[in-house]
Amino acid sequence: MEAKQVLFTDVNTQTWIEEVLLNAESHSEFSADPNWSIYKKQLHGGQSEGVDLIEIDNGALRLSLLPTRGMGVWKGSYQEIPLGWDSPVKAPVNPAFINLSERGGLGWLSGFNELVCRCGLISNGPPGQDTAGNPIESDLTLHGRIANTPAHYVSVELDPRDGGWIRITGKMEEGMLFGSHFLLESTLETQLGSAEFAIHDRVTNLGPVTAESELLYHINVGSPFLEAGAQFEIPFAEMAPRDSRAAEGMAGFNTYLGPTTDYAEQAYYFKPICDDNGYTPALLSDKKGGLGFLVNFKQGDLPCFTLWKNTQTESAGYVTGLEPGINFPNFRAIEREQGRLKNLSPGSSYQTEIQISILNNSDSVDEIRQKITKLSEKSESIIHDEPHAQFS
Amino acid sequence: MEAKQVLFTDVNTQTWIEEVLLNAESHSEFSADPNWSIYKKQLHGGQSEGVDLIEIDNGALRLSLLPTRGMGVWKGSYQEIPLGWDSPVKAPVNPAFINLSERGGLGWLSGFNELVCRCGLISNGPPGQDTAGNPIESDLTLHGRIANTPAHYVSVELDPRDGGWIRITGKMEEGMLFGSHFLLESTLETQLGSAEFAIHDRVTNLGPVTAESELLYHINVGSPFLEAGAQFEIPFAEMAPRDSRAAEGMAGFNTYLGPTTDYAEQAYYFKPICDDNGYTPALLSDKKGGLGFLVNFKQGDLPCFTLWKNTQTESAGYVTGLEPGINFPNFRAIEREQGRLKNLSPGSSYQTEIQISILNNSDSVDEIRQKITKLSEKSESIIHDEPHAQFS
Amino acid sequence: MEAKQVLFTDVNTQTWIEEVLLNAESHSEFSADPNWSIYKKQLHGGQSEGVDLIEIDNGALRLSLLPTRGMGVWKGSYQEIPLGWDSPVKAPVNPAFINLSERGGLGWLSGFNELVCRCGLISNGPPGQDTAGNPIESDLTLHGRIANTPAHYVSVELDPRDGGWIRITGKMEEGMLFGSHFLLESTLETQLGSAEFAIHDRVTNLGPVTAESELLYHINVGSPFLEAGAQFEIPFAEMAPRDSRAAEGMAGFNTYLGPTTDYAEQAYYFKPICDDNGYTPALLSDKKGGLGFLVNFKQGDLPCFTLWKNTQTESAGYVTGLEPGINFPNFRAIEREQGRLKNLSPGSSYQTEIQISILNNSDSVDEIRQKITKLSEKSESIIHDEPHAQFS
Repeated sequence: MEAKQVLFTDVNTQTWIEEVLLNAESHSEFSADPNWSIYKKQLHGGQSEGVDLIEIDNGALRLSLLPTRGMGVWKGSYQEIPLGWDSPVKAPVNPAFINLSERGGLGWLSGFNELVCRCGLISNGPPGQDTAGNPIESDLTLHGRIANTPAHYVSVELDPRDGGWIRITGKMEEGMLFGSHFLLESTLETQLGSAEFAIHDRVTNLGPVTAESELLYHINVGSPFLEAGAQFEIPFAEMAPRDSRAAEGMAGFNTYLGPTTDYAEQAYYFKPICDDNGYTPALLSDKKGGLGFLVNFKQGDLPCFTLWKNTQTESAGYVTGLEPGINFPNFRAIEREQGRLKNLSPGSSYQTEIQISILNNSDSVDEIRQKITKLSEKSESIIHDEPHAQFS
Repeated sequence: MEAKQVLFTDVNTQTWIEEVLLNAESHSEFSADPNWSIYKKQLHGGQSEGVDLIEIDNGALRLSLLPTRGMGVWKGSYQEIPLGWDSPVKAPVNPAFINLSERGGLGWLSGFNELVCRCGLISNGPPGQDTAGNPIESDLTLHGRIANTPAHYVSVELDPRDGGWIRITGKMEEGMLFGSHFLLESTLETQLGSAEFAIHDRVTNLGPVTAESELLYHINVGSPFLEAGAQFEIPFAEMAPRDSRAAEGMAGFNTYLGPTTDYAEQAYYFKPICDDNGYTPALLSDKKGGLGFLVNFKQGDLPCFTLWKNTQTESAGYVTGLEPGINFPNFRAIEREQGRLKNLSPGSSYQTEIQISILNNSDSVDEIRQKITKLSEKSESIIHDEPHAQFS
Repeated sequence: MEAKQVLFTDVNTQTWIEEVLLNAESHSEFSADPNWSIYKKQLHGGQSEGVDLIEIDNGALRLSLLPTRGMGVWKGSYQEIPLGWDSPVKAPVNPAFINLSERGGLGWLSGFNELVCRCGLISNGPPGQDTAGNPIESDLTLHGRIANTPAHYVSVELDPRDGGWIRITGKMEEGMLFGSHFLLESTLETQLGSAEFAIHDRVTNLGPVTAESELLYHINVGSPFLEAGAQFEIPFAEMAPRDSRAAEGMAGFNTYLGPTTDYAEQAYYFKPICDDNGYTPALLSDKKGGLGFLVNFKQGDLPCFTLWKNTQTESAGYVTGLEPGINFPNFRAIEREQGRLKNLSPGSSYQTEIQISILNNSDSVDEIRQKITKLSEKSESIIHDEPHAQFS
């Protein structure tokens, strides 16, 4: 049986569905599993006015997808386990209410509350003036524009193979006269009943000249995965703290504090190593090792990994970020110098792939830990106790 | 009989009513008075696109409330008397169209046309760089963000006691990762048939650390209250002109010019004194004393009062502001120095209360005048003819 | 028979029609011609969310009008000939998503894709600080605000005279306390079956003092009119290149390259001369002279003409601009110095008129060429090979 396509949004053909529910009743041919659903609506009120939301339920895993916010994943749950974090920003914010330039270029934070959001496409680091690139793009704001760029195209695929796959594709463009012009095509997929979802992205240069791109996945996790004594593990060839503040925490970089008053964020940069299939597992597990949040990413596409620790008090936003990227979130001029910008010639693309899995028992957590240990043993892991010129 | 609650908006539960009319027909149990109504709609077109508007009619007093603009009161009328002023900005402006940072931080003015709007919550003065507070909040724009923050929660209470009270509660949050995080809960109430409404506000620090707050009620009145020879009265212990421009007008600070070409605004700062119940009356009355616009405010909560005179020509915006505040609308660094910032510890709150009454005959105007005179006689009123370091 | 008025939007009376189709069926009395229609809808999805669009079909000529973008004309077609250009910005952008201040004041470009858009009303040149005008308006951004100002009033007139005229009037205001206050009333009209449309604009100073205004029509054309060897003609008294880059192209200023990698834009400034009726024809014709895009403008109202050549590659935006204006798009301080700003006293207005005609055969192209040649012969045409102080 063929996969069924349902178009939610296509600005080019002026197609848009305000509200719709797909489920076993409306699409009985899709799967024998009766528990899945896809519910699309538009939010109203507050700063969520006009935000399109897609709630996906694969029967076990629920995800709230935000076409209006660059196909970010707002939050989710697996069975009873919440996925995401508790940001001071409570609901999805329509980019129309956001001024990326305000607060010295840190306006991005006023909409930041997602489980998964992208930083890019021209820059994913801090704000500042980087005059070496396209002149119209030197005025950089924190983490770039893509998380605040509404999708102009959204479609759903119901693929009946293997019990049923849900795939949701969104497209966003960043482009303007005299500027670079990128297309991001993003597909989120999940198999019915599974504890996993994957994101497949492709960034294409639609512009006339070679253009610089940065991209990073800001994957943000709080309780119950994150707690005092929670562990972070990744197989890596080399790592360093981002700055002197992060260097202070080197002794315990791979474990976490509980919610801590006046904690200042720390970030660590890794060169991951991958398994035989090219994937790197990055694991956050709770103290007892009974719960794991696993990010598997295609290391060849995403050769840079950033660990962001922000174990402030709960009300401030207790969270850690597992962040695979094509580059590190330094100021773009540094990344250019280090040769980590993607230079895309006209018409060419790059792709990325990440998988997120929820591990809800100690056996599955142990299995990944053992895998990481084995991968780590393949080669020496260089650990810099101080910031290193190669990284930041 | 119990009060009836009607929920209009709750972003957290994804509740929102696009259009609804509450009146004697739909809620006959509320009151014997058949003349009240509450009509909620969403505006469309121009810069009003997407603005939620609530029109309240208590049978005598009408008010247009703007959830999308921080629960500001756009305008009103009492019987045939218009309440508000004629701003160059004619209709409510969706904050999505406003860039507070533009025009050197004066972008706030491009949405300013309300009868009552709030200035705050982190700052209510002029734009500038104040680096002494939270670093992410040093880039201050005129009058802060709260008047351009949409309410994420709006509910109506129909309370049958005393012939019937209408209460409308809205909630707004200002917060983001690394920033301060305030919740403003605002209730506007009016009794059926009355010439009054009150606003009860509570500001709570939801963040993890003590945070600085400023708040001021920009209550703006034009014709027919304001005219050549109109009077302003308030009982006060001390007052001073804000600056040299205001000092020029000290001789007539408590009376008004008619619409005046090339008039430059003047502001006067007062330390009010209150009656035995803790309220300060601030009165604007027309020349003949047959019409009065009275602001009563809880002086302990709002110890600073600003009189803003802007008697420009009608087409420029002929208006005066009666502005109780927790502080004066100076640049925040000055207010910090003067100890007038509210320093809120985590979880703590402050409250404010203002009542606005329309006086439509000389007896009621005279009564308030006599009250103000008596209160003024309780102590010496210090008048500074020049700006004074304690105020500005 | 009288003309029929249909009101689409009036914010003042809270009138707005979400979707409507006017055609021979709904308005049979309008014309014997059955092929016309006017379709109004609201766009959804992507950055077009909330944009009002009016699609006009006069039976031969189709135009897509954007009330939300200052009554700009997005694109059109005449029979099978597309009108407009292929911008990197594919769909109409809601001004709510645009930050004019970003990118060093070049944010305007992120919404730029129209066939006809206006630059003004306080400024139409490059960004910068011009402190000589109204102080609240010194922070200038590229091309001003009017193309990103939603119409608060939109009405349609169906006038049965001469087989039928469609007229669509929109009104936009630029104004705020302490700022200048302009009203733009714009009417687009087209006769059923014709290959032409006209725009009649009136700008009125609603403010209290004399205010400076700039206005320019950015009329943008790509293929099939624009191609290698396409010709530009206008009768003029004097012209000069804008800058040294434009001076490089003086030898071929009136012809075009094909799509050219790394082409940098060139602009030429003209003082046009007009025919006995006061109109100046500006013609873009394809290489063979079988297709012409003709702009006729009332030269007394629009004494400055700018030719913008931007023959970049197709994917960058292959386009030329035929741009009549009340002034040249230099920085406002230059235009003030040259006496080209419109100084409008309170209550006074200025009007402009442009007609756009599609010529789809060599006879009609030749006829206009001959007219231009004749007009050109009326007086000497001074050509400056280098930038001239009078122009830029």
